[in-house]
Amino acid sequence: MKREKEIVIGVDIGGTGTKIGLVDKQGRIIARDESISTKSYESFNGYIDEVGRIINSLAISTGCKENIKGIGVGAPDSNYYTGNIEHAFNLPWKGILPLAGMLSKRCNTGVRVTNDANAAAIGEMRYGAAKGMKNFIVITLGTGVGSGIVINGEVVYGCDGFAGELGHVTMVRGEEGRLCGCGRRGCLEAYCSATGVARTAKEMIEKINEPSLLRDIKEITSRDVYEAACNGDKLALKIFDFTGRMLGEAIADFIAFSSPEAIILFGGLTRAGEYLLKPLKQAVEKNVLHTFKGKTKILLSQLKDSDAAILGASALAWEIE
Amino acid sequence: MKREKEIVIGVDIGGTGTKIGLVDKQGRIIARDESISTKSYESFNGYIDEVGRIINSLAISTGCKENIKGIGVGAPDSNYYTGNIEHAFNLPWKGILPLAGMLSKRCNTGVRVTNDANAAAIGEMRYGAAKGMKNFIVITLGTGVGSGIVINGEVVYGCDGFAGELGHVTMVRGEEGRLCGCGRRGCLEAYCSATGVARTAKEMIEKINEPSLLRDIKEITSRDVYEAACNGDKLALKIFDFTGRMLGEAIADFIAFSSPEAIILFGGLTRAGEYLLKPLKQAVEKNVLHTFKGKTKILLSQLKDSDAAILGASALAWEIE
Repeated sequence: MKREKEIVIGVDIGGTGTKIGLVDKQGRIIARDESISTKSYESFNGYIDEVGRIINSLAISTGCKENIKGIGVGAPDSNYYTGNIEHAFNLPWKGILPLAGMLSKRCNTGVRVTNDANAAAIGEMRYGAAKGMKNFIVITLGTGVGSGIVINGEVVYGCDGFAGELGHVTMVRGEEGRLCGCGRRGCLEAYCSATGVARTAKEMIEKINEPSLLRDIKEITSRDVYEAACNGDKLALKIFDFTGRMLGEAIADFIAFSSPEAIILFGGLTRAGEYLLKPLKQAVEKNVLHTFKGKTKILLSQLKDSDAAILGASALAWEIE
Repeated sequence: MKREKEIVIGVDIGGTGTKIGLVDKQGRIIARDESISTKSYESFNGYIDEVGRIINSLAISTGCKENIKGIGVGAPDSNYYTGNIEHAFNLPWKGILPLAGMLSKRCNTGVRVTNDANAAAIGEMRYGAAKGMKNFIVITLGTGVGSGIVINGEVVYGCDGFAGELGHVTMVRGEEGRLCGCGRRGCLEAYCSATGVARTAKEMIEKINEPSLLRDIKEITSRDVYEAACNGDKLALKIFDFTGRMLGEAIADFIAFSSPEAIILFGGLTRAGEYLLKPLKQAVEKNVLHTFKGKTKILLSQLKDSDAAILGASALAWEIE
């Protein structure tokens, strides 16, 4: 293998689609394929076979077949230690799926697997906002809230391979906590995900007697709230205030845990920009222990939205020996 | 130096007294001195000089002078990276104190410094309940609540040397949260420390109309609550139920962070045994994310109370190269 031309493969397995890309050392995606519809494969075998076929075909068409260092995969409910997907809620195949083993055999190269938030953390460390950092936390704000925690330069996988579920710390205790997708109540995810923002919107519309552009919308999304905020809608601004404040309070606790150099926010909801960041930063400063005051940077991801999933997954493969 | 006879020095600096011990590889304290009254030294220079004098005298009297590998110090508000004590609240000297530098010069050997909870974690890893573990959290339940977090076999110090302040995650948000010694409200420490238990006792005595042995005590301590519980006092049991439940809820969140193999409880309050552990374990199982259910052991420290501070501090010194 020519080391100077080494490339890695990034595979992002989502519940709907699968993205595959060839990535060079500088973090450039030199070829990509987003044609696979994950949910249309009844058999996991058939799915892996198709992923392998596309990887090989991309490698051949770019003349990189001999330069592949390995494959990194971002997949829900996947275990870094075993390489298996375990009981994924959002994928069409049930039980324990030996993803790394099968894909490694199919493509004849090393495969590393982790969830999308951990992959994002590795991606930020190699190509993005966390370059040169040894201690940081990536928080992904999408349909759900995920996290990838890096300590002493390594992603935290914990004793079982599943550590870093900061979307499920409890923010509102007891019966008044919102029901979360995980079956528990009051999780950060139930408030600070895109769907959480939509829920806050519905609640505030009912509770607060104030005119708002959002009142005319049937099924409010976080995007609607953003657009209303851009138009100066006061209720929309209150919704982001609430969301940012809760996320900031949670982050203050995370800082007490690992005292990271930075918290890096990633995912669709970060498009809200200062509407979210301003109350968030205020809440961090208000709630953080004096020891840590003013120490932690709050940053936005530096991976381009459309590339982030492939880049994050691909970055895993650089770790392969 | 004869490697087979290597010994280390452990120094535990408390606000009241200072403990010094010589410890061998098996974790036996072969000599100790607890004569120094920390608070009686007006000058930090004079204090370090006395600590150095005692270390040398212990080493000479045991014939170990040539076998000392280094000195580990547990001290409040101390920074592992710099070796300094920074603005300690409970010590007689203010500002930044170059502890490691001065003691190293005085004794002519390497010195490592961290806070007591991190020292406890290293002690458990080397001599106690965490032998062979790579991922665990020690929670110290004393006058305050501290923590030492180990991930991938290393103590988490964070970007600044002060990580692992789990006593100051917020358990009760807003104005109803108890005022904590740190100036914030609702911290775990305000509820689950020995003083937190005493506060809960006072609150419950006022709120709950029920006979209790505790009603006759003027200044209730956690020890009084324990003794009442041993005598079957229902209110005392309710106090431990409340404390254990809150600590269990906090631990469920800590598990979501680093998925440790074990949580190890350390310090005076653990003498409450099952009165505390039973509600605690129930709360962990009730509140932990399904991914982690049944995975994390809840253990008690295996370091003997009277030895723990010296052993923890001494264990640091084995890391010296």
